[in-house]
Order: sequence, then structure tokens, then C-alpha cells
Amino acid sequence: MPKTKKSEKKVLEEFEVETTKDIEKKTFQIAKGIIDQIKSNTHPTFTTKVRGLSNVYFDEDKQYIQLGDKQVVRPFLNLGAARKFMQTMLVNDKCNEYLKEGKTASIREIYYELKRTVANTKENTFDGQNESDEVIVDVEHAANTIREKLGLHAESKGSLYGDITLKDLKHDNDIFNCNSLGRGGWSIMSRIEPEEIEVVDVNADFVLVIETAAMYNRLIEERYAREHNAILIGTGGQAARGTRRLIHRLRYEYDLPVIVFTDGDPYGWYIYSVIKSGSMALAAHSKYMAVPDAKYVGMTLTDVDTYSLQNVTEKMKDGDIKRAKELMNYDWFKSKDWQNELKLAIDRKIRIEQQALANKSLDFVAKKYLPEKIEKEIFL
Amino acid sequence: MPKTKKSEKKVLEEFEVETTKDIEKKTFQIAKGIIDQIKSNTHPTFTTKVRGLSNVYFDEDKQYIQLGDKQVVRPFLNLGAARKFMQTMLVNDKCNEYLKEGKTASIREIYYELKRTVANTKENTFDGQNESDEVIVDVEHAANTIREKLGLHAESKGSLYGDITLKDLKHDNDIFNCNSLGRGGWSIMSRIEPEEIEVVDVNADFVLVIETAAMYNRLIEERYAREHNAILIGTGGQAARGTRRLIHRLRYEYDLPVIVFTDGDPYGWYIYSVIKSGSMALAAHSKYMAVPDAKYVGMTLTDVDTYSLQNVTEKMKDGDIKRAKELMNYDWFKSKDWQNELKLAIDRKIRIEQQALANKSLDFVAKKYLPEKIEKEIFL
Repeated sequence: MPKTKKSEKKVLEEFEVETTKDIEKKTFQIAKGIIDQIKSNTHPTFTTKVRGLSNVYFDEDKQYIQLGDKQVVRPFLNLGAARKFMQTMLVNDKCNEYLKEGKTASIREIYYELKRTVANTKENTFDGQNESDEVIVDVEHAANTIREKLGLHAESKGSLYGDITLKDLKHDNDIFNCNSLGRGGWSIMSRIEPEEIEVVDVNADFVLVIETAAMYNRLIEERYAREHNAILIGTGGQAARGTRRLIHRLRYEYDLPVIVFTDGDPYGWYIYSVIKSGSMALAAHSKYMAVPDAKYVGMTLTDVDTYSLQNVTEKMKDGDIKRAKELMNYDWFKSKDWQNELKLAIDRKIRIEQQALANKSLDFVAKKYLPEKIEKEIFL
Repeated sequence: MPKTKKSEKKVLEEFEVETTKDIEKKTFQIAKGIIDQIKSNTHPTFTTKVRGLSNVYFDEDKQYIQLGDKQVVRPFLNLGAARKFMQTMLVNDKCNEYLKEGKTASIREIYYELKRTVANTKENTFDGQNESDEVIVDVEHAANTIREKLGLHAESKGSLYGDITLKDLKHDNDIFNCNSLGRGGWSIMSRIEPEEIEVVDVNADFVLVIETAAMYNRLIEERYAREHNAILIGTGGQAARGTRRLIHRLRYEYDLPVIVFTDGDPYGWYIYSVIKSGSMALAAHSKYMAVPDAKYVGMTLTDVDTYSLQNVTEKMKDGDIKRAKELMNYDWFKSKDWQNELKLAIDRKIRIEQQALANKSLDFVAKKYLPEKIEKEIFL
């Protein structure tokens, strides 16, 4: 049945999401603050948040990773910090320009756009994209927002299939339904902000997020989405930011349950972990991206026994086992079921891929595995 | 203006492309040949083509890489070959089944589908996907076809944008136009065979193949495709097989010129090289995939001077320089212009990325660089 959309205002309030105008003002205020300091003969300083483990925590209340409140103040009049200060001002200024002019750029483009030799010196503004990438995070934190709302974006990746109608508000208001694009589906954009992409209508019971493109293709070919009223999102490995924003919006704008389906190995489980609880690197952005009540349907090591897949497991490498041990220590993998699952993987030293279900038959995953586990809610 | 389509028959004849029924018969004949040998008390043998450099050549006439006629005969009654023989029969049999039942599978799925322990032994049919992948190539060569026509496919990758209408003949005859899918475009399927995807209509003057997803996004955002009547194909690095098939079909079914736009470095030039002349690994498949008259618009080292991009070049690593020297020896890079270009790169030890054009302005690539070079046909 068609899902009712929450009003945009409600969504904005709920996630404290600001408008483009708000963010533009913030970037202006950041610059104005510096100018005011200079005018009042104070040494200019730029304040952003401390990154890294010392300022990251798992928010038990919200059930996702958060960045703490520790701040770092960067002085301009300091040999070690002056260069970064200059870079920060350049990026902040450029973002303000993007927002004013309604432009967007990839993080690689802003690097190239700002790269030049400073007049009368041999000093380049940036010597590599790693420098501008670092500074973009500083500006995100200083403005308390995500890069997409600063006019920036990362590479796009991922595909969408199902009875969902989208409107691209920044591209002639194109309206399209992702249920009739053959077996390919829609190529998910790097920018899925509500100001740009409106989710006009959704006719589905849940969202199934799938790790591999091949499994995404399989489920489309077997008509799984059509028969089970599902929206399929193929992430192609770790989900890109745009894909995570889309999942987040479907969960909270349309109240759709999110179910994640990955390989049964530490890499797959971490894909689930990031969708559910966010990541250390993007700790500040969990409220825009994390879906704490996302469910995990598989693959699990229990599946290996339940569905007699012993013949098609693969050996875990040492690195995989080390990673599984790390996952055991994450707060959001502390449930008894997940601890058992991880322990089982470490003890048996095996992993099981999504495609391994083909050992039963090509359509086993669509006709038996997923319908059975999802109907009976056999989630981890 | 809308392009006229050549009749399907003409296309099939021109590329000696066989129907699914033909291929199904071939896989049957391969198996029957073996059985006949057994029945007549002959040692069973399987004949396929020699792979690797010793049997690969550049066809001056067709202007693409070809696999030669050298054959290899594999005996069953040979300790070293028996295992591979068994694997070949399994894959050939399964492909025959796929074709009969109208099924398709990824190369990972067929591996898992066929993996098992042989009854009363400790021997697995396959111990890793590398084994089945090898055998798939043997069957392709033995049947003189491509895996897509055997019901198999690789992972999908790449996006399509522009005024082109496709029909998915194997999915409720979905019809969709890729010009109104917002800024995302269509997620190109792994299978683009005429039996599955019909190109119903194309309204464009040329196809622009783009290496990076970010540049594909930029050109859509700047309305390049709409203003210049272009079809945009974002490959996301090296083009996937499905993407190459699509490019090939647009070139030969609709007579559309193909223009390639990559980073100006050996990796980007090799992407162009594969689209134009095929690759060693897929030497047997050039007739289905190569587009010998594909043009290369950029990036070039000459661009660095023409457009004053000296500030935004990057240093080439030793590996890049080595690769550039290899490219100089390829038959299809022997033109004076390409030799000059490659020599320039090797001498200056620099590379130039597509995104570096953002140094002029974000819309420079769409408003000046591409229109100017394409109109004046400044191709390499």
C-alpha cells in the first residue's frame, strides 16, 4: 500500500536539518567572525571540533555514533597552523559561493578549483586533494552540517529499483518511477538532499539494502521486488554517502523498515554496521545517515547450518578474523545474538557469501531464503 | 535529429552475431561430440583456442585486437587435464541449461551453483572462482561467442544519460527514456544483448564516454547533454562489459560517433584503447565490443598548454611512466599524434585529470572545452 509521507517540516524539525539559506549564513558568519577579530586587533582564530577516537562515542540514547563537544582552536598567527587556516578560509568562502549561486561540486573539483600558486610566492594553496579533504571536514564541523549541504559531494555509487517516484527539483523537475527502468534501475545520485530530490511517492513495504550488484540483479531478475513489494538498493560494497542519505530518508520520511543483506563476513557486517550506527570517520553526521533500527537478514553462519551451505563457505583470512574480533568490541554488536555470531565466525574461521545461495538454485534466495527469514523476522 | 536504426537482421549479419538458439545448439554439440567420442571408444578430447600473447594479434584490416586460430586439444585421459575437462563439461552443461530455460547468472553464481564435493570422493568440482572463470573463457572460445550469449555475465557498472529509449524485453517490456531520470541516469545492466535490451529510439548526435562519475555528474548538471544533443555514458573507470556492449551497439545500430573523454594519463588512455581496439584478455570478443573509429577528445598534455593548466597537473609515478612507454609500442597508438602525446607525457612526467578543468571554472568543461574541441574535431 502507498506510504504516507510525513510533512517536510516535521522531517526537518525531527532531524534539526537546516535549509540551504541557514548554512549559507553560517559560512558567512564563520568568515565574518575572523574579520571581526582582525578589525578588533585580536589574533584571528578558527574553531572546529576535535576528530578521532578521543572525541567519538556511542550514544546509547540515540543508538548511533556521535562526535563529542571537544573543540580545537586554530590560530592564524602560528607557523604550523597558518597554511591550514588559509586553506580553511578558501574552502569556506568557496562553499558560501556555491550556496549563493546554487552550484555544487565534487570534492575533487573544489580542490582543483582552489589550487593555485599564491601571488608573489612559490607556495601552492593546496598540494594534494588530501589537504582540501581534511579542511572540508573542518568546515563541516564548524558549520555543524554535512558537505552535501555545503554544495559539495563525493563520487556517486549504487542503484535503486522499486515502486518509488522521485522528482529532481534541480533538473527541470524530472519525475520518474524506479519500477519501470528495466532490470538496471536508477543510478543513485551523489546528492539526495530534500532540497534537490523529492521523494514524491513510495509504494512498498520495506527497503532491502544489498551489498553486491550481482545479488541486486538476481533479485530483480527473480521479480523479488515486485512480488514482495520491496524497494531494492544495491550499494556495490560500502554504501556511498548519497545512498546512505536515501536509505535514511526512506526510513524517516516514509517510515519504511530497512533490512540489510550482505555477505556473511566482517566486511559485510561492517557495511551493515555503518548503515545502522554510523562510522567513526563520519561520527558528526550520524543524525543524517544512521538508521539504528535497521535489521540484518543475512548472511549468517547460522544460515550455513540451517540451509546446508557447508560446501560453499570460504576460509576467513587472518585479517578477517582480526576484524571480526574488533567488531565484537563495538557497542552496537554487544547483543547476545551478534556476539554468538561473531564468535562462531572466529571459531570456525569461515565466511559465507550472498551468492553462495546459488548452490541451492538460482532462485532460492528470492523464493525461499529471503521470504522465509523476512516473514518470520529471523533477524540478527 | 532522431537516428534511424539499422534493421536488427542487418546488425546480426554484420557482426555475425548468432541467436540464443544457435548458441544453445553449439553447447549441445560440444557435449555431443564428447559422447560420440566415448561411444566410438576414442579418448575424449575438448578443443578450445590458445590464449595469451602467442595467439593474439592486431588485425590491421579491422583495426582491433583479435585472437588467432591456434587451437589446444585437451585430453580427458590425462592426469593433468582430467580435472579441467570435468569442469569444462559442467560449465558447458550449465550454460546449455541456462539458455534452454531462459535463465542468466553471474560468473560468481555459476561457480557456487556448480561447486560441490564429487560423490564418494574428497574432490571438489571447483576450489575457487578462478577455476570456473578460466573454464568459462574456454567454453566461450569453443563456442566462438561471448559469455553474455551463454547466459552469463559479470558485475554491472556504469550509468547512462540522454535522449535514448530502451525496452527491456525480458522484464515486462519496460520502456523508459534515459533523458528524464533526474541527474542520476540509468544504471547500465550487465547484459545489453539485443535479445534482452532493445534500443527503441535515439535522439542524439553522438555518444560521449566519460571516465569518472564526477565528470559525468558535472556534464549533466551543466546541461551539456541537453544543449549538445549528446548521450553520456559514465564508465566509472575501466568500462564494464555491459557498458562496452552498449557503446558498441549505439555505434553500429544507430551509426552514432563515439567520443571518449578520460583523464590524461596512461590509465585513462588505456580505457580509450580498450573501447577502441579491444584488449588482450578479451581478444576473441573485439567484434562484439571494439569501436575502432572511436575518437579521443581529452585530456591531453597539449591541453595543458592550450588551456594554461600547468598549475593543476600531477606528477606521474614510475609505474605510470612505464605504462606510457608500453602504450607507445601498441600498434593502435602508432599514429604520429599519439606518439608525440605519449612522448610528451614521458618527458614531462606529468598527468592531467578531467576535474583539473575546474581550475578555470566549474562550467568550463561544458561551456568551452568540450564544445570547442568537438566542434573543431580536435581529436587525438
